[in-house]
Amino acid sequence: MKLLKQTINSINTIDRKYMNLAQQKLDSFFKPVGSLGKLEDICIQLSGIYQKINFDTSKKAILAFAADHGIYEEGVAPDPQEITRLQIPNFVKGVSGVGCLAKSANADVVAVDVGINCDDLIDGVLNYKIRKGTSNMAKGPAMTYDEAVQSLEIGIELSNKLINDGYTILGIGEMGIGNTSATSAIISVFADLDPLEVTGMGSGLDNDSIIKKANTIKRAININKPIKKDPIDVLSKIGGFEIGAMAGVILSASSNNIPIVLDGFISYAAAIIAYNLSNTTKEYMIASHFSKEKASSKALELLNLEPMLYMNMRLGEGSGAALAFSIIEAANYMYKNMVKRDEIYNTF
Amino acid sequence: MKLLKQTINSINTIDRKYMNLAQQKLDSFFKPVGSLGKLEDICIQLSGIYQKINFDTSKKAILAFAADHGIYEEGVAPDPQEITRLQIPNFVKGVSGVGCLAKSANADVVAVDVGINCDDLIDGVLNYKIRKGTSNMAKGPAMTYDEAVQSLEIGIELSNKLINDGYTILGIGEMGIGNTSATSAIISVFADLDPLEVTGMGSGLDNDSIIKKANTIKRAININKPIKKDPIDVLSKIGGFEIGAMAGVILSASSNNIPIVLDGFISYAAAIIAYNLSNTTKEYMIASHFSKEKASSKALELLNLEPMLYMNMRLGEGSGAALAFSIIEAANYMYKNMVKRDEIYNTF
Repeated sequence: MKLLKQTINSINTIDRKYMNLAQQKLDSFFKPVGSLGKLEDICIQLSGIYQKINFDTSKKAILAFAADHGIYEEGVAPDPQEITRLQIPNFVKGVSGVGCLAKSANADVVAVDVGINCDDLIDGVLNYKIRKGTSNMAKGPAMTYDEAVQSLEIGIELSNKLINDGYTILGIGEMGIGNTSATSAIISVFADLDPLEVTGMGSGLDNDSIIKKANTIKRAININKPIKKDPIDVLSKIGGFEIGAMAGVILSASSNNIPIVLDGFISYAAAIIAYNLSNTTKEYMIASHFSKEKASSKALELLNLEPMLYMNMRLGEGSGAALAFSIIEAANYMYKNMVKRDEIYNTF
Repeated sequence: MKLLKQTINSINTIDRKYMNLAQQKLDSFFKPVGSLGKLEDICIQLSGIYQKINFDTSKKAILAFAADHGIYEEGVAPDPQEITRLQIPNFVKGVSGVGCLAKSANADVVAVDVGINCDDLIDGVLNYKIRKGTSNMAKGPAMTYDEAVQSLEIGIELSNKLINDGYTILGIGEMGIGNTSATSAIISVFADLDPLEVTGMGSGLDNDSIIKKANTIKRAININKPIKKDPIDVLSKIGGFEIGAMAGVILSASSNNIPIVLDGFISYAAAIIAYNLSNTTKEYMIASHFSKEKASSKALELLNLEPMLYMNMRLGEGSGAALAFSIIEAANYMYKNMVKRDEIYNTF
């Protein structure tokens, strides 16, 4: 709890002075003012985050956390639970979605077991297992309050380490069969919406199964009565270990003046938890893609964020965050190299 | 006219057999079916275009054409006309929007003068000047029918050359003060919409000026009576040299089994011209970004295309096409490297 509190307390608002300088620099370029849209927004945000006009966005990593979910036993997911265990090594081998897209973007992937339902240590995957999956939230809290804090602090610790190692931009990712249920539950609570309105197909449910899934989520909320004002209480009762860890990364990045690139649906839940622990974290978030999972727009409304990529993707893992890295680097390249109006008119 | 006819006649529908093989390959990957959305669509499309399962998308170029517009004298653009001439060298120096974003994506930019209002030859810019800008379409046809064919054939010739030189994917871009007017006029004709509904701010007009611009476009359409069934007639009466040349690139790429990445608003007009010359060209088009210019959705509806990037960009030049290159390369990387379901279950 100490690390969590320290981290939250050291999150500061991003630097308006540097944001203004960035705006001035962009407006001095030889192009219609504002015509590069979100590329310009990114440059302004990054200047404010780094408190610099020149910064490096090339040292990139995705922190991806895997965990299983007790609610799986209610039949909320079409896939075998073992897929969590089977897929995570492919993150670091570069052959899963995030593995491939991170390699293509020249970014590293750090994969972490925070609660996979397995006994073995997995090659190349960091072992921070809290427990072999959460408890079934349809019957009681998914985890204890202490475990929720632990999940947040694992994210903080690993993110702090990467930032100390010189990474200048981080993305978050996850793997966990059943975790769209936890995410829909979290969105339902924070948006005050019926679970049916925020429950989607996950990795491929049909309509009847989606209704069953929504009813299971409703049951989980009714039994646990998560307290919206205490995001850790919500995380513990209806969340997941990987969601907590991702929220921890957001808190750490924000406290270290490092931008944090969100991924898709599950990452939105982590962002909502982090945002409710510290509203200032939002200033450090970059939304990558608009997940195809239902309720993405509701989740992003809670954060008032607008993604760059609309790819109909719904894989998770960090795949969308990896894809956004190249856009962010392009923005930074433009910001460093575009010719100024003055240079044109003085030299022609 | 011969080159144009030959090119149009040699455009074939993309290969369904390879598209099916691509779909099968994607469905064999260890991930929920279809969960990578448009990344998968791109792989399927590229397989059909190249008639291959393995292909290279790393040799990339943007063909960008610059020309001036006679309608400029009606006060339809807020910028000095000389900006067309001033900006085009920055495309190849890597310091304009497309210059920077292409460099960041490791793509080449080939810039071509097809009608800039200047007398000098420009360093690094190919000289294919048809005339020093179109005539004022508010008073008569922007160009002759022969000039329209010439603009299309310049695009075809240069695109053919790049493809012969080994480029495996092309994007289009442009520069031309006044060219949102020509584009809105073309969309108005092909979508049967009042110019007021499809006229936007361009590089930064206020509302009153937008209404004036729309009325000027209306006048151009009323005077010239472009014949929708003859896209070359439309191009000649209310188009621009750079729009014709970009349409030519689309025709050439399609006839050579090479994907063509669209840019923003002006490129949509070129795509509409090319599509109306040969509907099959659509199968070769990849929409990059959704331009912030009004009527983008109307234009894309005509083409039934959905972009990947929603960046609020309205710069043109080829900047959006350059940005999309990295997404396409990421898709191809994933397509080549993702682990298959069988490999997981056979080796675990």
